[in-house]
Amino acid sequence: MIEQIPDIVISRLPVYLRELTRLAVEEGKVNTSSHELGQRLGISSAQIRKDLSHFGEFGKQGTGYHIGYLIDQLREILNLKEEWQVALIGAGYLGHALAHYQGFEHRGFHISWVFDNDPQKIGEEMNGLIVRDIATLESALSKNQIKIAILVVPASAAQEITDRLVAAGVTAILSYAPIHLKVPEGVHVSYSDPVVQLQRMTFYL
Amino acid sequence: MIEQIPDIVISRLPVYLRELTRLAVEEGKVNTSSHELGQRLGISSAQIRKDLSHFGEFGKQGTGYHIGYLIDQLREILNLKEEWQVALIGAGYLGHALAHYQGFEHRGFHISWVFDNDPQKIGEEMNGLIVRDIATLESALSKNQIKIAILVVPASAAQEITDRLVAAGVTAILSYAPIHLKVPEGVHVSYSDPVVQLQRMTFYL
Repeated sequence: MIEQIPDIVISRLPVYLRELTRLAVEEGKVNTSSHELGQRLGISSAQIRKDLSHFGEFGKQGTGYHIGYLIDQLREILNLKEEWQVALIGAGYLGHALAHYQGFEHRGFHISWVFDNDPQKIGEEMNGLIVRDIATLESALSKNQIKIAILVVPASAAQEITDRLVAAGVTAILSYAPIHLKVPEGVHVSYSDPVVQLQRMTFYL
Repeated sequence: MIEQIPDIVISRLPVYLRELTRLAVEEGKVNTSSHELGQRLGISSAQIRKDLSHFGEFGKQGTGYHIGYLIDQLREILNLKEEWQVALIGAGYLGHALAHYQGFEHRGFHISWVFDNDPQKIGEEMNGLIVRDIATLESALSKNQIKIAILVVPASAAQEITDRLVAAGVTAILSYAPIHLKVPEGVHVSYSDPVVQLQRMTFYL
C-alpha cells in the first residue's frame, strides 16, 4: 500500500526537478547535495531530504545525489516519462503566448490542439497549430484521449467549458480564468491568476 | 502588536475578494454567508470564518456578511485602496498578453511601464504603452517609486534583472521565468510556471 503523500510535498517536486535540470544541462554538474539544492531554492536541506524520502533512497551519505538518476526518478514519480498531449482552450493574447511558450519542451508537455469559438480565429495558425472550432472539442479530445487542458477563456465561459472538458475525459486543467471551477472528484485544477498573486504580496507592502 | 498571520491565510484572502466581487457585481447580491462562500470556493465555512477572524468581526450571526463592507475591508487589509503602478519587464508574447490583460482593472493594479532590451521592440506600442529601453529601468522606477514588477524574461536574464529591480526599490516581483530568484529579506517573489503547475497534477494521473 502506498502512503498518502501530502500535496505540499508533491508541489515541491517539480521545482526540484527544474533546478536539477538546470544544474545538469546548464552547469554540467553530475552530483549535488540536499544542501546545495536547498541553497539554490531557499528551502532547508532537511526539508528536501524529508520530501524525497517519501519516495525512496536517492542519495548517498557523503556523495549526495547523482543528478541524472534523481532527475530520472522524479520524472517517473511525476509521470513524465512520456510526453503529455495538451489541449489549449482559447486563442486570445494569453493563448497565443502559451502556444508559443518554449518552456513546455523537454519538460513533459506538448500543446497539440488549440480551440476557440471566434470565427475570426478558427483556422488561424499559431506556432504551427491550427485553431479549431470549439464545437469539435468533444470529438477531438475523446478520440485522442487528451487528459490535460489549459483554459484561457473569459471567466464567464470557464465553467461551461470545464464541464465539457470533464465530460470529454480531461482530468487535469490549468486555468487562467479568474474564477473558481467546480469539478467532480478525481479531476484536478490548478489556477493561475496574476492579480491573486500580486494581492498576496501587497498585503506585506 | 499585530499577531503574525500565516501566509496561507493571506493567500486565501484574494480568492475571497475575487468571489465576493463576483457575487456583488455579476449577481447583484448584498449579503452572503461563510457557508455560501465556502460552497462556491470548495473551502469549508469554518475555514473562511477562521481566516477572517484574524482581522476582526465582519459577519453577524444569522445575517452573515454584508458583501460591500467585506470587500471594502479586504481591500484595506490587502493594501488595495490605492491603485499600484506596475512595471512589466519583457515585451515578448507573454509580456504582450499581460499588457493587454483586462483582469488588472478595478483589482488594484495598473501596468504603467514596459521594458525590453530588444531594439526591435523598444518604441513599439502595446495597449497604449510604449516599450522602453531596459537601460532606463533604474531611473524610471526610482523616479516613479514603483514597488511592483512583473518579470517576463528568459530564465538566463531573470536573476540579473531581479537584482536591478531590487536595487531600484522594487519589493514585490511576480515572475514568469522558470527559475528560483534570490532576493534579500523584505522582497517578495511569487512564481508562475505553467509546467510546474502541470507537473503537480500529472503525479495524480
